[in-house]
Amino acid sequence: MTTAFPVLLGAYATTATAHQTAGETTATAAETTATAGEILGRCRELVRPALAETVGRLHPWVGEMAAYSFGWCDVGGTPAEGAGGKGVRQALAVLCAEAAGASGEAAVAGAVAVELVHTFSLLHDDIMDGDQTRRTRPTVWKAYGTGPAVLAGDALFALAVEALAAVPGAGAAAAVRRLSVALGDLVRGQADDLLFESRPWTGATAVGPEEYRRMAEHKTGALLGCAAALGAALAGAPESTAAALDRAGRHMGVAFQVADDLLGIWGDPAVTGKPVHRDLRQRKKTFPVLAALSARGPGASAAGQLATLLEESPDTPDDATTRRAADLIEQAGGRSAALAEADRHIAAVERCLDGLPLKPRASAELRTLLGFLARRDI
Amino acid sequence: MTTAFPVLLGAYATTATAHQTAGETTATAAETTATAGEILGRCRELVRPALAETVGRLHPWVGEMAAYSFGWCDVGGTPAEGAGGKGVRQALAVLCAEAAGASGEAAVAGAVAVELVHTFSLLHDDIMDGDQTRRTRPTVWKAYGTGPAVLAGDALFALAVEALAAVPGAGAAAAVRRLSVALGDLVRGQADDLLFESRPWTGATAVGPEEYRRMAEHKTGALLGCAAALGAALAGAPESTAAALDRAGRHMGVAFQVADDLLGIWGDPAVTGKPVHRDLRQRKKTFPVLAALSARGPGASAAGQLATLLEESPDTPDDATTRRAADLIEQAGGRSAALAEADRHIAAVERCLDGLPLKPRASAELRTLLGFLARRDI
Repeated sequence: MTTAFPVLLGAYATTATAHQTAGETTATAAETTATAGEILGRCRELVRPALAETVGRLHPWVGEMAAYSFGWCDVGGTPAEGAGGKGVRQALAVLCAEAAGASGEAAVAGAVAVELVHTFSLLHDDIMDGDQTRRTRPTVWKAYGTGPAVLAGDALFALAVEALAAVPGAGAAAAVRRLSVALGDLVRGQADDLLFESRPWTGATAVGPEEYRRMAEHKTGALLGCAAALGAALAGAPESTAAALDRAGRHMGVAFQVADDLLGIWGDPAVTGKPVHRDLRQRKKTFPVLAALSARGPGASAAGQLATLLEESPDTPDDATTRRAADLIEQAGGRSAALAEADRHIAAVERCLDGLPLKPRASAELRTLLGFLARRDI
Repeated sequence: MTTAFPVLLGAYATTATAHQTAGETTATAAETTATAGEILGRCRELVRPALAETVGRLHPWVGEMAAYSFGWCDVGGTPAEGAGGKGVRQALAVLCAEAAGASGEAAVAGAVAVELVHTFSLLHDDIMDGDQTRRTRPTVWKAYGTGPAVLAGDALFALAVEALAAVPGAGAAAAVRRLSVALGDLVRGQADDLLFESRPWTGATAVGPEEYRRMAEHKTGALLGCAAALGAALAGAPESTAAALDRAGRHMGVAFQVADDLLGIWGDPAVTGKPVHRDLRQRKKTFPVLAALSARGPGASAAGQLATLLEESPDTPDDATTRRAADLIEQAGGRSAALAEADRHIAAVERCLDGLPLKPRASAELRTLLGFLARRDI
């Protein structure tokens, strides 16, 4: 099978316009003509009744916070639509069940569990990061208070475990084990990400690209991998297939994170909806910066200047400083290193998928979805 | 089997001195002479290596916060001892495994899981309640910050699920299912408890004693019941035994909570270490108050005066007001209703245990522990 991802990602990242939307993304495989938007929509439709039923079991107050964070209602409980996530994780679970030869229905409990865990992690991460808006609305802690948001996250977490543990048959324990490993990694990644903030740009205790890679795999990749593996495992796929899909999801997480880092520096504000050089304004330790700082050889001089600039710039650097930093990152090779890093992980996803006994149509849809993921905000 | 609990609780609660310590509590059964303190200590010793090994798997920073909340170290990680909990839940798991005829070792994974969940819930509850000290030390959010404390709680939660899901054999799924039900109830109880604060003392939306009972069962009883049931189930006891022990733990939770409410109003500060009329100063909606407010017949007049006093008193009532409130609660029958309520749940514990095929020695130790629980802070 030919791979279209590296080329697409390269084209996107170097032009940094990314005008493509979910609706326009199409698979190159002849087996399917569904766009990523159509695939995501179909999977959301399939999972929504079970997800709504599961969330409906919550304490009414907690249930309202959960529904708000899914974009199903406003503060106060008035039904609303349109502010929810795309449901990438539930789609991965459904597609991997179909790719393993079962109906997508087989993955629904797993899809519900990963969406609940994802929403729990957004809820708690927004508290930890102090983020006040998400998807153009106030975050849950901002709208309902910190204590209630902690509680709502806990409730979603508990519900995710309950949903998986209730799977009939012998698969429940293995499914819960898989989720618990992802949960542990999620927490580990978030811990590292929080600690990165207070670490220096240079010296023995600086964050290196390899550490960043591990953080991204844990924070973003573990749950994507878990979603894919759970879908296949619940469909009766052998452990080797589930394990390969888990690895694929983890690589996808790193590729997505690095692509998002590229957007965070060079993304077109007209497309991303975020200010230019956003991550540099926030002094975030992203992959392109870390790769630039660790440059040897021809990039070393620019790396040294970048280090000085970052160490001496204030907490909220001005436009001239962030522009200069972006230029130095590029000169030190940080941008090309990030592009190569993303391509490497996308190639690794391909290697994980190649040779697996997957159904052609679902496999093609899976690749459409993965291609879409490497280019846009999850 | 004769029951010593109602008598003991009555004696304690009416004199409200509770001078008995864990070390002095002895079982009446001839099969054991171990005190509650000795029983708790033995179970802590048995579980500690596995608990320490499990916590040791955490991210080092998160692991330090976990160790701090277990009382194993100070802020910064310097080893310390003595600030930990008594380990009631792990002891319940161990004793119920022994009561079911197995070695306490069989319950260790369950004991680890319930201690982790208990510690997670303390950590997050302290954030929600804004409590600044626990066991004479700063709470985790106070010592490490709110965001890190949210993360540490999440990590303990994930670890609890992982510990149980890793149990070998067919019991893992059922064990995780049981824990997830308790987790859901825990969150439900905490949600109700938080919402009680903003509800009125009287009228159609006032909190009634029955609502309080359900809150206490969820918030305190569910995890005690889960601990007991997990211990038995992991020891191979039939589901009917585990279910009966679960019910026993839930009744025990309500009895404990109501006994704690009695202490919160009439407890001797020299014994409790907390100010007199503590719960009345904080305007907490505890069982004696709610029972008094719902009094009919002879207590109705005092109930009416109490309602007026509570509705008109400021957020931080003075000593004269809290003294008057305590008197009115007693006159309206709130104190005797609470004593009767605790006795009723302790009798229900007895009924759950009676007739179960439990080993005499462990069963006697279990009753020693339960008798101890009805009198002291968990």
